Amino acid sequence: MTHDIAVIPGDGIGKEVTPAAVEVLEALEIDFEFHEAEAGDAVQAETGEALPEETYDLAASADATLFGAAGDTAADVILPLREAVDSFVNVRPATAYPGVDAVRPETDLVFLRENTEGVYAGHEDRLSDDVSTLTRVVTESASRRLAEFACDFVTDRDADGFTVVHKANVMRETDGRFRDAVADVADEYGVETDEVLMDAFATRVCLDPDQFDVVVCPNLAGDVLSDLAAGLVGGLGLLPSANIGPERALFEPVHGTAPDIAGEGVANPAATILSAAMLVEYLGYDEEGAAIREAVETTLEDGPRTPDLGGDASTEDVTAAIVDRL
Amino acid sequence: MTHDIAVIPGDGIGKEVTPAAVEVLEALEIDFEFHEAEAGDAVQAETGEALPEETYDLAASADATLFGAAGDTAADVILPLREAVDSFVNVRPATAYPGVDAVRPETDLVFLRENTEGVYAGHEDRLSDDVSTLTRVVTESASRRLAEFACDFVTDRDADGFTVVHKANVMRETDGRFRDAVADVADEYGVETDEVLMDAFATRVCLDPDQFDVVVCPNLAGDVLSDLAAGLVGGLGLLPSANIGPERALFEPVHGTAPDIAGEGVANPAATILSAAMLVEYLGYDEEGAAIREAVETTLEDGPRTPDLGGDASTEDVTAAIVDRL
Ligand SMILES: CC(C)[C@H](C(=O)O)[C@@H](O)C(=O)O
Ligand SMILES: CC(C)[C@H](C(=O)O)[C@@H](O)C(=O)O
Repeated sequence: MTHDIAVIPGDGIGKEVTPAAVEVLEALEIDFEFHEAEAGDAVQAETGEALPEETYDLAASADATLFGAAGDTAADVILPLREAVDSFVNVRPATAYPGVDAVRPETDLVFLRENTEGVYAGHEDRLSDDVSTLTRVVTESASRRLAEFACDFVTDRDADGFTVVHKANVMRETDGRFRDAVADVADEYGVETDEVLMDAFATRVCLDPDQFDVVVCPNLAGDVLSDLAAGLVGGLGLLPSANIGPERALFEPVHGTAPDIAGEGVANPAATILSAAMLVEYLGYDEEGAAIREAVETTLEDGPRTPDLGGDASTEDVTAAIVDRL
Repeated sequence: MTHDIAVIPGDGIGKEVTPAAVEVLEALEIDFEFHEAEAGDAVQAETGEALPEETYDLAASADATLFGAAGDTAADVILPLREAVDSFVNVRPATAYPGVDAVRPETDLVFLRENTEGVYAGHEDRLSDDVSTLTRVVTESASRRLAEFACDFVTDRDADGFTVVHKANVMRETDGRFRDAVADVADEYGVETDEVLMDAFATRVCLDPDQFDVVVCPNLAGDVLSDLAAGLVGGLGLLPSANIGPERALFEPVHGTAPDIAGEGVANPAATILSAAMLVEYLGYDEEGAAIREAVETTLEDGPRTPDLGGDASTEDVTAAIVDRL
């Protein structure tokens, strides 16, 4: 069976780390067909559109998409791409690796971020010279769908349950609905949950990340708190993510285009290669996913390393080492 | 001149740390008249109201209010109290003290949090069995008022400028308005600013808090990011805050009621006493404010210390030591 994979490098270091991840995928005994497409600042400057229709259509029809990063147009690219794969959950592991300087080396979390609504639903109005509004949307159906995914996720992972993060003491109706819907589903599945307010979570995860494991959040909370966890593990350079839909999915590093080092060939490909590991696992190749992960971990620990981790290796060197270790 | 101070201990350790701070205030050569009032879970259980009208009226007429903490009713108490003093900015310093174990000992930040709107404006609707909405409000006037305060604040503090945090790449109209209004005012004042996305701020402040100083945020961003900073300095036990209005103000520790230790007489009074320092500075007594701060810092470094900081002193011991050092 051939798997059609859309490959969208985007801008900046996206152009360096995405081919690195493709190289790793090509080294596996899996039948992939890669279809490359453009998105981001460069194509916007050329054509006026950050996300050309062909690119959207490709993501909407491929079995899976690998995306790099986009610059100033990031929101115009990634939000519609998440929609293209009908992604309802953004899976964001934040793991501290041995050999990498981390603020909190014991961090090992997975965020399951609602990926369709909240403030991202984006109904905004300029009501007057003074007043602007945004309508934040929370639905029972999206909250339940996320919770069902979370229940399966913790069961697969043999986790004890999950933590629900919300701000229902202030957003009583919307986050109250989110919290209650998630708790209801967990009850039906017999999965244990606890709940923490979003602000309290921010404090507690710094003080002791070990007390959390799987964390289920509304959209913006997931965005901010997973980036906080990225800080705890030592930077965005290591965080992969998966945007999962019912039929297809999109995989991307959490980092951006890193304009300061773009073009120098020294970008750390780890986050994108780990995203590729999530991609192959999504397609059902658990062993291959585990093999990539192990090869990345060994390379993080034993080198070669890119400059962001204190080494002087190139993206190519690191990728070659990972491929060697597969 | 007599200063009328409303004192609202609230629940849990609020009942222990608020009298401690009053003791410190009484040790100063300032003419205070204290007026105590009730709020929180206990009075709600008794009377059905978490914030009795007398308490609201007292805060709305006193020169300044000192508030402890409230339990499950926290939002029903603190949000109306902030309104009672017409507070448009929540000032939240997050400083790591020598002698206190901190995740990031170099943390020294002040958050200036918009205190009236954003998601806290709280227009929520249950539109259907599936859909709930919340209207997030951002106004030009509140954004400008906050920015004017921020400009005066950094000028007084001799700071280089401030950082504006927002999520205008997603909330283009509302946070775009916030960002632009704040930047305009800063321009008029000749104050330098830079801007960081809310999620990127969460990562960067963990990796290197030293790169930030004064941080200006919308309401929920300020809530979450200041609690994140609390994690970096080693917990909520040390963070004071001021809710400033045009005529009056309310001071409170950032921590809650700590039900696990409430009633044992071992709560750390530092955050509330530091809030009292902000109170006397607000009333114009800069020397006395500095004296309190110094006495607290010396006590944090040399002891006695409460159990949360590894000591075995009581709230009373610590308060007595601080008063002695004034
Ligand atoms: C670029 C931006 C729209 C996006 C988001 O807010 O989701 C990014 O921060 C992310 O987390 O992938
Ligand atoms: C209790 C709650 C409503 C409050 C807030 O969200 O502002 C608290 O978290 C705070 O920061 O003082």
